[in-house]
Amino acid sequence: MQKQDVKKVVLAYSGGLDTSIILKWLQDEYKCEVVTFTADIGQGEEVEPARKKAINLGIKPENIFIEDLREEFVRDFVFPMFRANAIYEGEYLLGTSIARPLIAKRLVEIAKATGADCVSHGATGKGNDQVRFEIGAYALNPNIKVIAPWREWDLNSREKLLAYAEKNGIDISKKKGKSPYSMDANLLHISYEGLVLEDPNHAPEDDMWRWSVSPKNAPDESEIIEIEYKNGDPVALNGKKLSPAEMLTELNRLGAKHGIGRLDIVENRYVGMKSRGCYETPGGTIMLKAHRAIESITLDREAAHLKDELMPKYASLVYNGYWFSPERKMLQAAIDESQKHVNGTVRVELYKGNVIIIGRDSKTDNLFNEAYCTFEEDSVYDQKDANGFIKLNALRFIIAGKNGRTNN
Amino acid sequence: MQKQDVKKVVLAYSGGLDTSIILKWLQDEYKCEVVTFTADIGQGEEVEPARKKAINLGIKPENIFIEDLREEFVRDFVFPMFRANAIYEGEYLLGTSIARPLIAKRLVEIAKATGADCVSHGATGKGNDQVRFEIGAYALNPNIKVIAPWREWDLNSREKLLAYAEKNGIDISKKKGKSPYSMDANLLHISYEGLVLEDPNHAPEDDMWRWSVSPKNAPDESEIIEIEYKNGDPVALNGKKLSPAEMLTELNRLGAKHGIGRLDIVENRYVGMKSRGCYETPGGTIMLKAHRAIESITLDREAAHLKDELMPKYASLVYNGYWFSPERKMLQAAIDESQKHVNGTVRVELYKGNVIIIGRDSKTDNLFNEAYCTFEEDSVYDQKDANGFIKLNALRFIIAGKNGRTNN
Amino acid sequence: MQKQDVKKVVLAYSGGLDTSIILKWLQDEYKCEVVTFTADIGQGEEVEPARKKAINLGIKPENIFIEDLREEFVRDFVFPMFRANAIYEGEYLLGTSIARPLIAKRLVEIAKATGADCVSHGATGKGNDQVRFEIGAYALNPNIKVIAPWREWDLNSREKLLAYAEKNGIDISKKKGKSPYSMDANLLHISYEGLVLEDPNHAPEDDMWRWSVSPKNAPDESEIIEIEYKNGDPVALNGKKLSPAEMLTELNRLGAKHGIGRLDIVENRYVGMKSRGCYETPGGTIMLKAHRAIESITLDREAAHLKDELMPKYASLVYNGYWFSPERKMLQAAIDESQKHVNGTVRVELYKGNVIIIGRDSKTDNLFNEAYCTFEEDSVYDQKDANGFIKLNALRFIIAGKNGRTNN
Amino acid sequence: MQKQDVKKVVLAYSGGLDTSIILKWLQDEYKCEVVTFTADIGQGEEVEPARKKAINLGIKPENIFIEDLREEFVRDFVFPMFRANAIYEGEYLLGTSIARPLIAKRLVEIAKATGADCVSHGATGKGNDQVRFEIGAYALNPNIKVIAPWREWDLNSREKLLAYAEKNGIDISKKKGKSPYSMDANLLHISYEGLVLEDPNHAPEDDMWRWSVSPKNAPDESEIIEIEYKNGDPVALNGKKLSPAEMLTELNRLGAKHGIGRLDIVENRYVGMKSRGCYETPGGTIMLKAHRAIESITLDREAAHLKDELMPKYASLVYNGYWFSPERKMLQAAIDESQKHVNGTVRVELYKGNVIIIGRDSKTDNLFNEAYCTFEEDSVYDQKDANGFIKLNALRFIIAGKNGRTNN
Repeated sequence: MQKQDVKKVVLAYSGGLDTSIILKWLQDEYKCEVVTFTADIGQGEEVEPARKKAINLGIKPENIFIEDLREEFVRDFVFPMFRANAIYEGEYLLGTSIARPLIAKRLVEIAKATGADCVSHGATGKGNDQVRFEIGAYALNPNIKVIAPWREWDLNSREKLLAYAEKNGIDISKKKGKSPYSMDANLLHISYEGLVLEDPNHAPEDDMWRWSVSPKNAPDESEIIEIEYKNGDPVALNGKKLSPAEMLTELNRLGAKHGIGRLDIVENRYVGMKSRGCYETPGGTIMLKAHRAIESITLDREAAHLKDELMPKYASLVYNGYWFSPERKMLQAAIDESQKHVNGTVRVELYKGNVIIIGRDSKTDNLFNEAYCTFEEDSVYDQKDANGFIKLNALRFIIAGKNGRTNN
Repeated sequence: MQKQDVKKVVLAYSGGLDTSIILKWLQDEYKCEVVTFTADIGQGEEVEPARKKAINLGIKPENIFIEDLREEFVRDFVFPMFRANAIYEGEYLLGTSIARPLIAKRLVEIAKATGADCVSHGATGKGNDQVRFEIGAYALNPNIKVIAPWREWDLNSREKLLAYAEKNGIDISKKKGKSPYSMDANLLHISYEGLVLEDPNHAPEDDMWRWSVSPKNAPDESEIIEIEYKNGDPVALNGKKLSPAEMLTELNRLGAKHGIGRLDIVENRYVGMKSRGCYETPGGTIMLKAHRAIESITLDREAAHLKDELMPKYASLVYNGYWFSPERKMLQAAIDESQKHVNGTVRVELYKGNVIIIGRDSKTDNLFNEAYCTFEEDSVYDQKDANGFIKLNALRFIIAGKNGRTNN
Repeated sequence: MQKQDVKKVVLAYSGGLDTSIILKWLQDEYKCEVVTFTADIGQGEEVEPARKKAINLGIKPENIFIEDLREEFVRDFVFPMFRANAIYEGEYLLGTSIARPLIAKRLVEIAKATGADCVSHGATGKGNDQVRFEIGAYALNPNIKVIAPWREWDLNSREKLLAYAEKNGIDISKKKGKSPYSMDANLLHISYEGLVLEDPNHAPEDDMWRWSVSPKNAPDESEIIEIEYKNGDPVALNGKKLSPAEMLTELNRLGAKHGIGRLDIVENRYVGMKSRGCYETPGGTIMLKAHRAIESITLDREAAHLKDELMPKYASLVYNGYWFSPERKMLQAAIDESQKHVNGTVRVELYKGNVIIIGRDSKTDNLFNEAYCTFEEDSVYDQKDANGFIKLNALRFIIAGKNGRTNN
Repeated sequence: MQKQDVKKVVLAYSGGLDTSIILKWLQDEYKCEVVTFTADIGQGEEVEPARKKAINLGIKPENIFIEDLREEFVRDFVFPMFRANAIYEGEYLLGTSIARPLIAKRLVEIAKATGADCVSHGATGKGNDQVRFEIGAYALNPNIKVIAPWREWDLNSREKLLAYAEKNGIDISKKKGKSPYSMDANLLHISYEGLVLEDPNHAPEDDMWRWSVSPKNAPDESEIIEIEYKNGDPVALNGKKLSPAEMLTELNRLGAKHGIGRLDIVENRYVGMKSRGCYETPGGTIMLKAHRAIESITLDREAAHLKDELMPKYASLVYNGYWFSPERKMLQAAIDESQKHVNGTVRVELYKGNVIIIGRDSKTDNLFNEAYCTFEEDSVYDQKDANGFIKLNALRFIIAGKNGRTNN
């Protein structure tokens, strides 16, 4: 791609220092018109201030897109993923991963709406996010061009960046209280990277965490909540119907209050190296546990096991940026097929980092029946049936043994 | 099988009321010689008293086998399973399941040593344990006979059992402090079933738990421990080498003290129904988390992902009683192949139910390197490589899109 | 179940000797009303004669159900299965397995329509079919009773059966030309078991095969056909639209003529033993190859690979009788999601047992583009992209190597 | 990498025109010493003539490596892969894929032996082979440099190549009888790409095939062979012990004679596009079928099913070039664990493209027993056991149905 080939570019613009530098750099280097796109996906910062900043950088008002995507984010991305009980590498709830395809989608849609031929983002050249943005964009528009400044420019140190900003009149005053860590936030989680975290043998400082209290500082009183599920999605909290974004917001508040959802891991990036990250996912941590609990009484055994077998692949697809791929959609079709009976309520106790299931019930879809599991007689289970069940399941071993095959 | 076909039977004998009744019943119904086998697998009760009870029931001294299997249990069953990070249905650490094959193995071996043609156990007719015992036995000796009294006799109520015991001079006085729940205990866990647990919407009473304190009653001070791993197994704690059973014993003590490892779930039994169970697995809960942590810096990404994909099947095999099956051994071969580099130490903080990883290190096998994941330049990663990586990974979408395939 | 509990039973009735004996035996032993169900699923025998036989055995005319299920069989069972490219144990096209759930379904439906409380079938006690019938029936009606005479009666030898038939006036004259093998036939295949086949080291006699010619006797001239696919199903042959049953009938004729689709294997039964079977699946063998061919140009790579990974499980589910299970439906949902683009035509050459793909094309969904795979330059693929693609895919090895991990 | 960084490069040198041009180009562009490596892996051409060509191009005699790797190729690469029954995308036997890691291994080893810091190959920039060579090389030596001339130079048309050759005195006279197709050959297969094959709707000309006769021209008489297996590998043919390479050579001769092993497919390349290829794999086609046959009587059912479930991933790993990866080794460990009982003989009839199994036997490991699958009584199988087996396998459906869940 030649620089002059780009006529108009849609930039994922946070309003912060880095993407402001990118904005300017795109104007200078590509001599092209820039459209800014700023989304509220629950990162907890005002998005409206990005408008003024964009205008100051010479963006035409009609080229400034500021949108509240919180409901779409939770409804169409977070909830479908939680139906899968997705966890990456046994630990990570995919908070950053799941937000990227939505941004990619809106970038491509805004490009179409504004006649832009290109999109750009501020993800660095060693991370997963560049992959997620760009694979998402290509999947939605095969002709889209992509500019990834971090892989292209020579502003590859903090000093050069600040010098460039200053030269171009971009405000570099550090926001008060801004974290020194590399962070990403949305309605599902906050992530932290960098600094002391670069030594996996070094625990994070307690003041790193922005959202949740430490379990040690959480209330001494536990709190019990009730979540109602419909087709695998949480729809009401303590008896009150909530929209998807409202639900996650409220579960975040509750989880954060009780020290729930902190995570400190070394994970494997798609681009090949290991990376240390810390995460806060208070509401998501509650949702995962509660969803498994409602599934435990409503989901058929083999449906549940099949879900568990498919899950790692599903999680990798989300982590690696393949949300819009045919294979993710195939897995989603299988998962969603299983969720039509996942209806009922779960009661959860929150206490100092613990998410404790204390009850699950389903008026309509309960497959648990006390009578069938006690040692007493019941109407559907003849204990003598176990003889044949065991005998035929063991038959291949019996035949092998009788044919002289030993087992050690 | 005709009753007269049985000449000599090895009974898994705990010394308790139920297996004492079985012992007597076998003598009466089958008119056969009975060999008792009592194992210490860490259930926390003396096994030696079973000798006297057996003798009182007429068992010949040379037919009484009392063994301490704790080291074998942890070394050859628990540890291999934890190399797999096995969890059944997203929650259960398989504490009961993993002990059964060992019992089956010794039953068959003792049968061979004593010239017995039959084995017997006290597992009920609706549970998983009967399957685990019997499939294990058949896998190890295809000609072995099995008597499962609970599926056969008509002592199918508590009253009939007690009457039978009384009539036969078996002590039915309730042991002081004995739990009213149906329990199973070994060095990995204690399980609880029955009573109020039969309503999955009813939380267990706090006095049910026998091993761990409640997180609410755990110390206000956290405790930090360091576990050293060798080839995927924990070998030293706080710098002190421990045998497998010593290691698990000590981790249990620590976990129990800090309210770690309580679990309350509805699970799917192999014989077809759902069942409510509560579990305490203090040491196992620490081990699972710590093992994932040491793997996170020492295991190759795709090896880790393959393990995650195979794990649900592995866990089901253990749960269903297929420890001695060729397919479990195939999976174990794959898992063990991956563990040769899983060496290093993990530091863990224990606090009121929380298992918090605060450090992981490996002098010999660390694959984490800070330089490769920062946004700075490094020697092995050229950020421009990401262009091609993304482009070719997206190529199938680009081609599809250019051929007119839309993505929604 | 007590015998007097059965009021009315629906019997899968072929009109042959065995099921006529069963019919009589049910009347005698269970003293119940019998409803007969005879289906044409393409077994190649008239079904109408079963009416007279049933009447002769005292069945009321309104209790005789004779149905042509060929279209439903192919449309709702065979075609969905072929979308999955299902093969059991690398060889078997599941011809018998796929017909059983349809029979189970109609048995249960007819039971409902006639007020019967029970169903019965003529499958033997060591085979897979009993499982498929009964699991199917229970899945569709949990209260249905099942009588499996072969597991119950004492007519366990050919002599006793014939004696019973003679005593009860059932015609035992051997049908002229009837195969001495144990056979099952439907529109998808014919299976053979028994006699010399019981020695897996003994090849079948050539006169065993009923449907296809030997490749050695097939025409010396090959024949080229063109199959059109829509959403993964074949819909037209040589330009002529055909219904599902017409399609399979015609492909059977063509395959049989050219010696296609004979198979001779040892397979693993669900009930635990190995079993030798021979199969003729002429049309199915063509369909499998042709379906893979149309998928090869229309299906996304990872969708295709995911299908391949799910296939063995899908095939086992069908083989084991779990057609109506939630897990089969989940897999089907995933598979069907992938088939919407599987449209186009395949040209196939048939020659002495060989199915040779000689062309595949799709006007609407072709993902193949010559330009992208030649060594020439093209618009979507920059060969330099391969540098980064390879480098990042190899990065985990490079890092491991630099950290001292050797690879042998 | 700067060009002056390369001191000495090991080139995979066939002696043909393309790699001769590369040799010269490396000398000119990189000003470095070139080591040539020419291997006989059964491609059917003399390798010794490459020596003189290399010398003519100025290579020092001590820098010329010509090796016969046929035994290592079959023993350590082909046979392990065939233990897995590996097939890529349902059709392709991975003939090219499996040879590349061996070449990569020797390139790296020769680099070490000669003090070279770089390897080079003649694979083009859009294919899979570049990936296989380079991932293999990096996996074995993380510091190795790689030069892939086709991705780097501007000789990107046939004309430029020829001009370059002529200018540099490289013989461009077309070898008589040389195929116009792009071919790759080794002891396992020959592949063809290009020309008319670039239209997937166009069948290959019959004179393209170099190895096998057409089924139409194969002998009218079939031929029966007997293959003996040991631990999953073929070790004797018609009673005569053969080394791995001898075995494959002889099976190729037999298969080719009988028109066996031609394949014409569209496959998905790892680098993202679809590609048409034709393949001849006569011996491999026989081996796959025969291996499945010997497994059918010696392998446990669930071991076989697990192998089938793992196979697609294994095949993709081989196809994509991950032979030396931890995950391929894990899968191989699982597969090899299963093969210790795969011993016995298979008789195969070869006839005009057909590979027909006509017998399988194992004196030591046969799990088939006629008695267990007939409808007669036997000692290990009580037909009444099927009642319980079916009932408990259906229990989850029965409970679901009784709880009101319908199944459609």
